[in-house]
This record gives sequence, C-alpha cells and structure tokens, in this order.
Amino acid sequence: MNIKCLIVAASAALSCWNVFAEPVLVPAPRKMTVRSGVYCASVADVGSIEVQEMRDASLPPEGYRLTVTTGGVSVASADAAGAFYARQTLRQLAEGAATGAASAPLALPCVEIVDSPAYRWRGAHLDEVRHFFGKENVKRVLDLMAYHKLNVFHWHLTDDEGWRLEIPAYPELTRIGAARPNSWKRGGKPHKVGDRRVIDRNTESYGPYFYTADDVREILAYAAERHITVVPEIELPGHAGAAITAYPQFACMPEGARERIWDAGWGNTVDVFCAGNDETIRFLERVLDHVCELFPSKIIHIGGDECPRKRWKECPKCQARLKAEGLKETNDLQAWMTRHFAQYLEKRGRRIIGWDEILSGDVPRSAIGMSWRTSQKNGTGDKLTSGAEGARRGHDMVMAPHLLCYYDYRQELADDPFQYIGGHVPLEKAYSFDPCEGVAEEARAHVLGGQCCNWTEFTWNEHDLAWKMWPRTCAMAEALWTAPAPRDFWDFYKRMEVHRRRLISRGVNCAPLR
Amino acid sequence: MNIKCLIVAASAALSCWNVFAEPVLVPAPRKMTVRSGVYCASVADVGSIEVQEMRDASLPPEGYRLTVTTGGVSVASADAAGAFYARQTLRQLAEGAATGAASAPLALPCVEIVDSPAYRWRGAHLDEVRHFFGKENVKRVLDLMAYHKLNVFHWHLTDDEGWRLEIPAYPELTRIGAARPNSWKRGGKPHKVGDRRVIDRNTESYGPYFYTADDVREILAYAAERHITVVPEIELPGHAGAAITAYPQFACMPEGARERIWDAGWGNTVDVFCAGNDETIRFLERVLDHVCELFPSKIIHIGGDECPRKRWKECPKCQARLKAEGLKETNDLQAWMTRHFAQYLEKRGRRIIGWDEILSGDVPRSAIGMSWRTSQKNGTGDKLTSGAEGARRGHDMVMAPHLLCYYDYRQELADDPFQYIGGHVPLEKAYSFDPCEGVAEEARAHVLGGQCCNWTEFTWNEHDLAWKMWPRTCAMAEALWTAPAPRDFWDFYKRMEVHRRRLISRGVNCAPLR
Repeated sequence: MNIKCLIVAASAALSCWNVFAEPVLVPAPRKMTVRSGVYCASVADVGSIEVQEMRDASLPPEGYRLTVTTGGVSVASADAAGAFYARQTLRQLAEGAATGAASAPLALPCVEIVDSPAYRWRGAHLDEVRHFFGKENVKRVLDLMAYHKLNVFHWHLTDDEGWRLEIPAYPELTRIGAARPNSWKRGGKPHKVGDRRVIDRNTESYGPYFYTADDVREILAYAAERHITVVPEIELPGHAGAAITAYPQFACMPEGARERIWDAGWGNTVDVFCAGNDETIRFLERVLDHVCELFPSKIIHIGGDECPRKRWKECPKCQARLKAEGLKETNDLQAWMTRHFAQYLEKRGRRIIGWDEILSGDVPRSAIGMSWRTSQKNGTGDKLTSGAEGARRGHDMVMAPHLLCYYDYRQELADDPFQYIGGHVPLEKAYSFDPCEGVAEEARAHVLGGQCCNWTEFTWNEHDLAWKMWPRTCAMAEALWTAPAPRDFWDFYKRMEVHRRRLISRGVNCAPLR
Repeated sequence: MNIKCLIVAASAALSCWNVFAEPVLVPAPRKMTVRSGVYCASVADVGSIEVQEMRDASLPPEGYRLTVTTGGVSVASADAAGAFYARQTLRQLAEGAATGAASAPLALPCVEIVDSPAYRWRGAHLDEVRHFFGKENVKRVLDLMAYHKLNVFHWHLTDDEGWRLEIPAYPELTRIGAARPNSWKRGGKPHKVGDRRVIDRNTESYGPYFYTADDVREILAYAAERHITVVPEIELPGHAGAAITAYPQFACMPEGARERIWDAGWGNTVDVFCAGNDETIRFLERVLDHVCELFPSKIIHIGGDECPRKRWKECPKCQARLKAEGLKETNDLQAWMTRHFAQYLEKRGRRIIGWDEILSGDVPRSAIGMSWRTSQKNGTGDKLTSGAEGARRGHDMVMAPHLLCYYDYRQELADDPFQYIGGHVPLEKAYSFDPCEGVAEEARAHVLGGQCCNWTEFTWNEHDLAWKMWPRTCAMAEALWTAPAPRDFWDFYKRMEVHRRRLISRGVNCAPLR
C-alpha cells in the first residue's frame, strides 16, 4: 500500500544496526580489541565471507585469532575447530542486534580477537527417555550448541522408562522398551502413583519412540560438521527398567522385573541388571559392541548412578559372584561391573565415563567421573566435594552439580508457563557455575569441564525444552568457555539483553532473563 | 534421580491450577456467572468431555449457553458454530493458568455462560505474496484463530511481487509469477531500490512458492472443521505485477510490463491489467471461474486498491473502452471493471468484496467494501470516514483501518527483535478498535465486522509472523466478539498476563504485552 512505501525509508533506517556499538558476543571472547572502522563484505551471508585462514600451531587447541580490518578478515588457528569457532564469532559480529539477521551488505566492526576455551568438555545433556524429541529437535539443539561454542552432546538414551536406541541383536529393547502404556500427560499429577483412577486419567500411551542406526548416523554427521562429540549413555547396572521389561531374564528376579515400565511414576526402580548372571554381562557387551560400531566417541557413558542393592542382596547368582570374585560386600558388585566394562571398552579403544557413584568403589584411574551430587550424601550437602574428591584421587572429572547445572530446576521467573521438577536455578546461579570450585590446585588438571543436564520428566515438547535450556545454556557456555572467576554477571546480563533477541528472532522459545 | 523423586510432590502441588480462581477467557464472554463448586471430568482431554448438546433456535447465530454444574456440562446453541465456540470456551476453562495444558483429571469451575459475537465478520488477513508461509503455518494460524473465535481468513494470494495460486489454464502464472529473482533478504536495506550493487547484496532469489488445488482443498477442509470461512483475494485491476510479468499481453503496455517482478522493491506498480483489452477480461474471468470451483466462500475478494491510472490514460484500448461504454473519465474504468466482475460473480452465486477504493465509482449496492484507509485521502486523516461513508451509502462494510488493524506496524516494545514497515499499533491501540466508530446509528447494520491485516514485506518467517500477530490478534478477537465500548483495557490486560502463558506454552512466539 502507498502508505507503506512512504515509510519504508524511515523504517529501514531504524532497523539498521549501528556497527559502531560494542560487539555483543556470547560466550565472551578471552581478549577483544575494537578498532575504528568497518569492513563491508560484498556478500550478504556470513558463510560466504572470504576469510584468509592460516594454521598457527602456537595457538591453543580450539583457539583462534580473528582479525577484521577495513581490508578484510583473517583467521589463525591451531586446528579446524578453532577456525570453526572463529566463524561462530564472525556470525555474531555480523548479526544485527535488532534482528537475528545479518545486515546486508555485511558491516563488520574492525576487531582483533584472541580467543580459546577454558575447558575442553563443554557439554549439554539431553534425556530422551522420559520424553522423546526426535531428530529434528536434536539437530536444533546441536545448532544452538555450536553457535555458543559447546562441543559435547551427552545423549541419555536408556533408563527405567524407555530404551531409545535400536539394537538389531535385541529387537525387544525397542519393540517393548521404547513404548510406555502409562506415561504422565502434561499437567498430570505424578504424586499419586498407584491410585489406578488417577493413573488412568493422568497418563497416555507414549511411543514407541526410538532411533535406528541410520537416524544416529544422520545426527552424528550433523554433529561432526559442528565439531560436537556425541557421547551416548547406556545406563547400567541401575536405571535399567526398560531393558529388563523387554528381557526379564537379565534381571535378578525376572517375575517382578516386568512391572516397572507399566507403572506411571518417574525415578528409578529397584529391579536392576543382575550382576551375577553371565548372560546379562554378555547382553550388555553385545549392546556396547553395537554402540562402539555406531559412535566414534572415544568416551562412552555407562551411567552408574542410583543403583539399589536390594535385589543383589536377595539374588543367589549375585551372592555367588561376590564369593567367586572375592569381594567383601554386595556394594562391591557395582565396582566389579564398572571394572569389567571399563576393561571391555578399553580393549576397543574407548574410555568409560559414569555418574560419580562409579567412583565409590575400586575402579581404574582411566574411568572418568561425572559429578552430579554436591556432597557424598545424595543431593543433600551444598559443596562440590564429590567432584573435587574424584579429581583429588586422580580421575578426570566432568562437573554437573545438580544445584547449578540441572535445567529441569525452576528458573524462578514471575511469568513461567512450564512445569519443573523442583529446585532453583535462576540465570545468575547458572552463571555462577565454576567447574573448579572446591578442587585443590594440584587436582585441577583433572577437571575436563562441565555440562548442563536437561532431564525431561516434566518437559513434554520442544517449546518447553527450549524455554528451560535458554537463556541458561548461554550462561553455561560462558562459564565453560571463558576463564574462571572473576566473571561479571551484569556484563553478561547486558549482552544477553541483545543476544536473547537474536535467539527469539531465530524462533527459539527463549525464557526471559529474570 | 532420587533427589528428583523427593521433590515431585511439592513441584506437582505448585504446578496445580487453582480452580477457584476467576476463569480467564479470551475473548471475554458476554455474560458469565461463576458458581461455587467444581465438575471433575473423568477424562484428561477437553475434546472427550461428555457434553449434553441441544439446539435452541432462540439463541443468536454462533452464540451458545454453556452450563457447568458439579453434575456435568451442557451446551445449548442455535447452530453448529455456537456449539463449536462453547467447546473453545470449555478448552480455556479447563486450561491451567500456569501451563497451557489441561489439569488432569479436568477440574472445571461451575459456571453459566451466555455468549454470542458482536460481529459476524471476525477476520484475520494474511499476505502470502510478499512472503510465503505454506500449508503448515497457515493451519497454525487457523488453529489459533478458532481458539479465539475468529471466523474469516482473508487470504491475499496475488500481488505485484507474486502469484501464489496455481491456475491450470495459465501455467505461467506460477511458473514465472511465483518466483522472484530479487526479493529482499531479512536485514536488507529496501530504501535503495535501483542501485544495482545494493540490490545484489541485499536480495535473494525467492520461490517458486505457490499452492496447488490439492493444497487449497486441504486448507479449506481444515478451516471448515474450525468454522472458518476462507475468502481468497485475486487483486485487480492493480497490484497485478506478477500476473502481467507472466502474461504481458494482459497489460496495457506489454513491453514495459515484464520489468516489475524483477526489481527488488515493495509496493505497487504502474503497470496494471488493461481495462480495454477483452482478452484481459476473459483471462480474469477464467481465473475467477477456477477460484469459484475451488472456494466455497460466498464472498470473493477482488482487491481494487491503489490502481494507478497512468497506463489507462496512455492506452488506446482503454480509451476506446471509455468511449464505447460512455464513461466520463479514465477513473470510471475501474468502476466499470468492478461492475463487470460483480455481475460475473453474481451469476455464479457469489458476492464481491474489495478495498474501499472500489466504492469511489458507481458500483452495485451488493458490493462489500473493505475499509483500510482512514479518510478519503489515502492514509492521511485520522477518522474512519471512508468506512463510515460506505456504510452510509448502503454498502455492507468490513473495517480494517490501517492505523488500528495493520499488524505489520510497530508494537512499540522496548525489546523487539523484528523489523516493521513502520506505523504504531501497540496492544492498547489494537484493543481500542471499534468497527462502528464514526458510523451513523442507522448505517451500523451494514458493518459486518472487521479484521487485522498481516502484510508481510518485513515478515520473513513464521516466528516473525507469530510475534506480530500475538498478542494483538487477541485484542482483535475481543474487539470483534464482545459488545462495543465501554471495554476495559486493564481487565483485558490482566487476563492476557495469564493467557499469554498459554500461547507461549503452545510454542507461539508471542510478543510481550508492552
């Protein structure tokens, strides 16, 4: 309409990004010098900017030196990852603050940026068991991870409520284990487990949902292009409900085992993999063989958390194993299994990582711990002692203390439409995460980094997931990329006021900052 | 994790909706009496609530009486639409304020609601020419329209920059007219039309994007289930750039006609359909024949706005037509065309609607006017005189004054990542829209209702579109459903604080309220 034409000029002018504003980068670079002047690329999208790339072995792994002058753009890096991260920085430099789009022609402020990550494990975890999000949503997560320079995707694929990875040798795992007859509906009331009427009204049949080998390969290729390592998790010996529902013979007490997946609760079951049954061990070896065939990751996650001992105590096979292996007490059966699979995977050139419980017993130094508890007492204390303790004992550690890193905990927003499992992790608290907190100086070399954990009992769809991940995952990205404290939350906050608009304009259902 | 299980109860309790709160409904019902008590449906989703439905001819069209007692739910309505809208109200009654999800088991407050719309044309318009959104996004719009009791989808399918409807008899319309070599990229600078270098950097080849007959049938079926009438718009005689680029022989000056679609600007072109060429008239008749075959709507939109006279003045055929039809001046050619197609469509049992320009000449009373200008002067004044004038002259009118109803105008949000064409329509202004404003008492019967117009020159994708449509379309829905002023914006605003959460939890990229 004419009236429109009349105001196009004014509007376009207003929507123009002021290239002289301080560039907004998330995560913040280690060192940035802004010079006067602008480089106008003759192209409209960042991907096609001509960049003079060179290798410089003196730079740290994944690091880069990015130089924008009025004459052009050059990048030096020690490796391909570094060059990739320079591109991500370039994307943000080119992006208008007002729209997620690049201004065209691209106007890049003249800067010199020398940058590299503080930690080499910069992770985000996704639980696809409690709820399943699927290929397209996983790719979306990978895209946003790369954009924020995160490099490890911890993929939680098996648990009590489901088994999401097809294993050709064991079809029942997905035929039975990938579907749930009574999964909680959104808005359901999960605290009345057992009351049949409540269950019928509050639950729905869910699935079958799972990934085939082709799905996985597609996601792995997508992740590789973005320099993201995908670490799959196969939970053992506990959180095995779905597997032993499909194959009860691998539990201590087959007759009871099948019930778990039918009920409608969340959490972990008393029925676990039998530590005494050699068939169970073979089964898990076959599963891990398939995992090793599919996943190039040098590190495989074997779970290990919250394994109840009740069945092992009652189970003759487990008690026999105890004797045969000369173990002192039932507890030691977990360490025995951890050792067994650590060695089994080591023969295949892989290392295990497991939740911090695996470190309680006598396990090889090569085992990596993932610290989720914040004290030796399960989730009670408020210090990161278990992670620190693991590092002190010489284990490489990935820190994910639930009190700071579990994004299924409340954001404490005034205006929040979603359900949370509980807890309290507002943006400022998420930003305060420091993987080395409480770790002795001499043990810090063992801290690989950290990650956020996105458990999904109360996360039903991708909108819900995005709302919980963003903006908190921006805080995680900065906590893992930039040098540790002192970091200034308010500086981060100011940048996030701009950066959040970029996310929203990409259609990310990003929560308010507070 | 155990810690999670420990807090499930607390969390679930907190996420529980307080059914005793005043029910939040958008649009507000005409009359609601809240009684004490709650009806607990034994089902978990609203669709399957058992509702006692009865017909009551004494109720107004689209109206309903909804009664919820502790014993159950009953609905009386004069027609199927009324029963459908009662269901929409039921959905909102059942919805938790905290999550978009229904609480399960459904707890419905006991209420008696007597409700009916103030206007019978409650519309939303979508321009799919400047940018194309596609089937899935159109369905999403239809879903949200129905949820807010809107009942007319005005589908802008043809314009200077594109032709989006496949017409088997004229394949070039979509082969050539559905693609654009130089369409503005997001963030581009549209005020430098003509400068080749700027165009090359700021534009991208766009399309071909168009709908086949099957696509249209799928969308029509989807709309019909939701009691939404789809009114297609075929622009004539102006805004015809795409059509005459595909078939230059239908313009006054074929040699110049082809250029329009190649250039990169927005707005309307000087080249229009030739009023003097009988071939052009036949062509448009064939196109409208196909439209009538496809669309059941009794009303067909023929555009009619902003048709420059320059070519008609220079064109011998047009001047010959002028003489032959005994018309006074070139301007009269548009009224002649309007009359011709009004009669042509009337023979096929349809009525025309057109932008208010069509009323400038001598046209049949049966022609419906769509008022977008707010005075006889193109977009200058500030009163709804042209709409009022149309009604005074006895034309049925649909009001869509750009100063209140164009949602491509700025929302004036502090924190807005998107581009706008200009203007100024914050939520409160959108809410102040009254279709009968300025219309004489005796002419008000001619005011069918109103609609918001979503022009998309500066709207590139569905996230962008949702941000501009919501929450403002909620204001439009209430302005058209509820009785006119006095309406209380702050009462609406308070409800929207809750209702916006419902939209966000559905994944609607809904803008803040202010």
